[in-house]
Amino acid sequence: MAESGAEAVTAELRTVDLRSDTVTRPSAGMRAAMADAEVGDDVYGEDPTTNLLQERVAALFGHEAALFTPTGSMANQIALQLLVPPANEILVDADAHVVTYEIGAAAAYGGISSRTWPAKGGAIDPQRVAAMVRPDGYWAVPTRAIAVEQTHNLAGGTVAPLATLDALRAVADGAGVALHCDGARIWHAHVADGVPLDSYGALFDTLAVCLSKGLGAPVGSLLVGSAERIAQARWLRKRLGGGMRQVGVLAAAGLYALEHHIGRLAEDHARAARLAEALAPYGVVVGEPRTNVVLLDLHDAPGFAAAARERGVLVSVLGPRTGRLITHLDIDDVAVEQALDVLTSLLERRAA
Amino acid sequence: MAESGAEAVTAELRTVDLRSDTVTRPSAGMRAAMADAEVGDDVYGEDPTTNLLQERVAALFGHEAALFTPTGSMANQIALQLLVPPANEILVDADAHVVTYEIGAAAAYGGISSRTWPAKGGAIDPQRVAAMVRPDGYWAVPTRAIAVEQTHNLAGGTVAPLATLDALRAVADGAGVALHCDGARIWHAHVADGVPLDSYGALFDTLAVCLSKGLGAPVGSLLVGSAERIAQARWLRKRLGGGMRQVGVLAAAGLYALEHHIGRLAEDHARAARLAEALAPYGVVVGEPRTNVVLLDLHDAPGFAAAARERGVLVSVLGPRTGRLITHLDIDDVAVEQALDVLTSLLERRAA
Amino acid sequence: MAESGAEAVTAELRTVDLRSDTVTRPSAGMRAAMADAEVGDDVYGEDPTTNLLQERVAALFGHEAALFTPTGSMANQIALQLLVPPANEILVDADAHVVTYEIGAAAAYGGISSRTWPAKGGAIDPQRVAAMVRPDGYWAVPTRAIAVEQTHNLAGGTVAPLATLDALRAVADGAGVALHCDGARIWHAHVADGVPLDSYGALFDTLAVCLSKGLGAPVGSLLVGSAERIAQARWLRKRLGGGMRQVGVLAAAGLYALEHHIGRLAEDHARAARLAEALAPYGVVVGEPRTNVVLLDLHDAPGFAAAARERGVLVSVLGPRTGRLITHLDIDDVAVEQALDVLTSLLERRAA
Amino acid sequence: MAESGAEAVTAELRTVDLRSDTVTRPSAGMRAAMADAEVGDDVYGEDPTTNLLQERVAALFGHEAALFTPTGSMANQIALQLLVPPANEILVDADAHVVTYEIGAAAAYGGISSRTWPAKGGAIDPQRVAAMVRPDGYWAVPTRAIAVEQTHNLAGGTVAPLATLDALRAVADGAGVALHCDGARIWHAHVADGVPLDSYGALFDTLAVCLSKGLGAPVGSLLVGSAERIAQARWLRKRLGGGMRQVGVLAAAGLYALEHHIGRLAEDHARAARLAEALAPYGVVVGEPRTNVVLLDLHDAPGFAAAARERGVLVSVLGPRTGRLITHLDIDDVAVEQALDVLTSLLERRAA
Repeated sequence: MAESGAEAVTAELRTVDLRSDTVTRPSAGMRAAMADAEVGDDVYGEDPTTNLLQERVAALFGHEAALFTPTGSMANQIALQLLVPPANEILVDADAHVVTYEIGAAAAYGGISSRTWPAKGGAIDPQRVAAMVRPDGYWAVPTRAIAVEQTHNLAGGTVAPLATLDALRAVADGAGVALHCDGARIWHAHVADGVPLDSYGALFDTLAVCLSKGLGAPVGSLLVGSAERIAQARWLRKRLGGGMRQVGVLAAAGLYALEHHIGRLAEDHARAARLAEALAPYGVVVGEPRTNVVLLDLHDAPGFAAAARERGVLVSVLGPRTGRLITHLDIDDVAVEQALDVLTSLLERRAA
Repeated sequence: MAESGAEAVTAELRTVDLRSDTVTRPSAGMRAAMADAEVGDDVYGEDPTTNLLQERVAALFGHEAALFTPTGSMANQIALQLLVPPANEILVDADAHVVTYEIGAAAAYGGISSRTWPAKGGAIDPQRVAAMVRPDGYWAVPTRAIAVEQTHNLAGGTVAPLATLDALRAVADGAGVALHCDGARIWHAHVADGVPLDSYGALFDTLAVCLSKGLGAPVGSLLVGSAERIAQARWLRKRLGGGMRQVGVLAAAGLYALEHHIGRLAEDHARAARLAEALAPYGVVVGEPRTNVVLLDLHDAPGFAAAARERGVLVSVLGPRTGRLITHLDIDDVAVEQALDVLTSLLERRAA
Repeated sequence: MAESGAEAVTAELRTVDLRSDTVTRPSAGMRAAMADAEVGDDVYGEDPTTNLLQERVAALFGHEAALFTPTGSMANQIALQLLVPPANEILVDADAHVVTYEIGAAAAYGGISSRTWPAKGGAIDPQRVAAMVRPDGYWAVPTRAIAVEQTHNLAGGTVAPLATLDALRAVADGAGVALHCDGARIWHAHVADGVPLDSYGALFDTLAVCLSKGLGAPVGSLLVGSAERIAQARWLRKRLGGGMRQVGVLAAAGLYALEHHIGRLAEDHARAARLAEALAPYGVVVGEPRTNVVLLDLHDAPGFAAAARERGVLVSVLGPRTGRLITHLDIDDVAVEQALDVLTSLLERRAA
Repeated sequence: MAESGAEAVTAELRTVDLRSDTVTRPSAGMRAAMADAEVGDDVYGEDPTTNLLQERVAALFGHEAALFTPTGSMANQIALQLLVPPANEILVDADAHVVTYEIGAAAAYGGISSRTWPAKGGAIDPQRVAAMVRPDGYWAVPTRAIAVEQTHNLAGGTVAPLATLDALRAVADGAGVALHCDGARIWHAHVADGVPLDSYGALFDTLAVCLSKGLGAPVGSLLVGSAERIAQARWLRKRLGGGMRQVGVLAAAGLYALEHHIGRLAEDHARAARLAEALAPYGVVVGEPRTNVVLLDLHDAPGFAAAARERGVLVSVLGPRTGRLITHLDIDDVAVEQALDVLTSLLERRAA
């Protein structure tokens, strides 16, 4: 049963879900696009809507090809398996999604060794990374790829400056290794820094970009890269169990999202800034949010989240002391203020 | 853009796609169900439509729980990883989907060793299987699970009799190993043999059942099993990159398919029988089809398929000499006769 | 402390160890060769005795190169990893050592999928194997290698005839797949059938041959193949933890064994025949031993072995009903008769 | 052929091998011990000399059990597989042997994810490590073990102070994770800092210690731990292909080494100090050697090593700018001075 508009509003008043931008529900327009989608069997490459989405996303990033995947984790893991043979290594920061929230798949399924540089608020020091690269020919496990996350989830939605990424690309080129971007929220970096998507695209061998987080589609990510790599990626996607059939019903939502939901991310950023500004006096905000993520440093994150949940505000718990708020398509100004009422009252009580 | 009805009819006249039952496109009723689906974030277990589908499918097979997966391959591979630790073994027939068409995932991702019994038209000899089981304690790689495929794709949609499966269950119990059913097309066995789904369910520790083949949904399978195993399966699904978000848009199609598309499989079986009957005189039909699959033994399968394609009939090529026809929701009697015109004319020409 | 000769004789009278030919202890001559061995660091390829052994074994089989490994299992597993990429498949019989007694390493470490043909006393049907090969290009997991075991341990030390192996080579060539020989006891086949070692060598892409079974060396096997493959094998050996240092102390024993212990295997075969002949009347001997292995089919193999052990005769238990006797360098005619006294008396008691 | 004494002296004059302490050749006394070793089949656990060595090493470190392995890499990898299930993680410094020189085995064979803290001359900051640990229950890949290397090879043979290791043990206990020591050269730490071996043993769940580096045995390491873990380790050793047979011939060398070669490591340390002192004026020595390793920072390490080799001095090349000298049993004062003549002359020429 679809929610009627009235019910939806009521529900929003009752619960403000700031756990993640993955929770958004497709809008009426998006649902209509899905209902009208022309479809075919995508395992045979015959789904016209999926093919269109793949072409469009490849073009956005200036690459030859793209591949739809059920999740961002699958897009990342396919990329890692494409770039790094078993028993070779990837360099990545110690808080990156690919070594944190993908259930150990890089090692368990790809046999990929990882070494990490310290995660300091998402900042990347290209010279430090360069010093970690292990060239071929010295008996050590050779480095085959470097990965970065843009924006960086666990660092609080931080944006790596284009100049830093340029320098990292030079490091990769110098060492003859590949560069992957976990760009699940690259749209937010694009909006926050005004960097064209194809400028990001030009820097990376592969990018994983997500439709079901900030962009609000129900399901799906894309892996972007060369035609040759994407052809291999189709095999790896099938091996991971991601070779779906009439994918067009999902791809249509993605096309809709690309058209309608990128520009509006600025609103999410403004609302995250509002949340951070209002919570900052309580000394719990980590850094200064640049996109749609607000990290909280709490004495008891699980306890805080439980108390907030009782009052209708959902907060993510990332660790014993770490909470997270994320703004998104289903959070409007009213929801932000409603959440702040609850969160500030909880923080005041604790301070008292 | 959706096809108008008129265009669709014309297209059907032009192309009869007998490659697989995976090619079906969602009907108007199914699309409406999808458009109306209530959704939530299924990674958090909060998608009501998906939860309903999972409960319903679990109940159909008399099990505690079920889990939606993007594909049947993922459902199978999760089951194998649940039942067989790395470096332990599974027994299965040599033509089973899990060791044929799942891109080597059982070994590559699960570290699972496999030994196979000869595939003879899908027939299972429980005593032969029993003799292959390796008990713990004798230094040999221990057998942990036996898998069967119902119906059996590469054997031509054959149906294992309930008595055979009962005997195999007894073998599994005697040896203390698990029994998995790759039931992508178990609906066809249910319809062909009149065995209740929960009678099948009672025989297996885990079953993988598919919505996007004969049942006509665009995407999705389910893994069925105990509550404990399905809880573990959620982790494995995420590791494989199958933890999607607003899955309800797909699950709604599944619910619709369960309600409307099981009984009608008898029509697909009748049409497969019609195809086999008409092609039998040319000596190319393997066995006698019991469900919706017709296997062909051809001098040059790729050449035959290419010639048929030129005339608007699509045939699968499974090997240098092996072709396959599958009937499904989008193949009516007209399409069957149109296909027969083309296929018999090609076979006659060759015989001439 | 070394055993004095007298003690050793007494020990032999007390215990006749027929569990395996792996139990042999180095003779005085072999120990002297080891004590005198010139050595270097074999990880750097600088151990002269190991290099000499490797060259000699390569030459024996008419191949370019060979590599010393700590065990036959490691030699086999390196070969499999060389020949079959992860997620590709090997065909082998269902009782082969590589899928039985190597602790699942092919799947767990190599990610290698296996399908098996039925083991019928070690007999190989090349046409059956040919029918199992999956060529590239049809979506199925492609076959990359076929493996055979010569002599075949679990089949009772059977010898595959040269003509059969020739036919299998033709199958492999026709399909474009590699052929591996687990030749842990290939020396016994050579002696039993009078086939030159290089005739065997000519048939296989890789062979694993063992020094520490029938040949009586304390430790070591060799992998034999092309120079290119053996160079890659050095990396895989190191990854498996098999890159030892002053290996010459072991290689010297191997060189001694090659010189002194091949021809005498005929004695072991004769003693196995004597055991089989004397036990045959009790209906427990499986097949007719051709080399140094006698398989027994017993009502209660563990119980039989325990009773024999109490009387100083050690028998292997391979399964609930399967026992095994193996003759070797440390078993002379006296030991055979001593064992027969014990075993026949146990069998008579049971028959009574 | 054994080298005669005279030839050996001449050879030493010609070549001073400072590449690694792995290059030592067994002394006459050690060879005699090997020649006299009582042996049995160690796969059956029946090799008395190996059993004695295992008991003795376990006792030295105050643990219940120990297991002989062909190499230190295998001992480390077994430990990692024991402590960290596939898809879980280990924390280790970025220059540790286990993620550098073991050919990617932890990920490729163990499926183990790794995150690394920065290697700064081997120094460990327990609080930094504590901050990296990921507890269970927050969706992130859980940390299961922390590993340290004592002494630290790539850091230049540095010794972690006991107080630091105590603090790290407290971190591990607080987080409920295991602590492994790659103690290939723990003997050198013991001699350098005067810390009893069982004091080190008390800090770690598992230790890998090596006989064939500073201790001068030809082959072998041991894994030390609880009886339960060592029992599991036997299976993993076999899966890795490390289940050798008459291991006593190697274990005897290990027993000899434990008795005769630990105390004398102080000589190796003094000689490394002499090398460092004499090379320091050229600005090439990294840090201040505390044990038997001298790291060199060179403009062109491969070129330098090639020039030194021409003059009979062998130097390891670890990277484009990194060379390494290691003193050991086969390097006496004469060899040190001979090497210094060559190395200083090369450095002077470059400076000129």
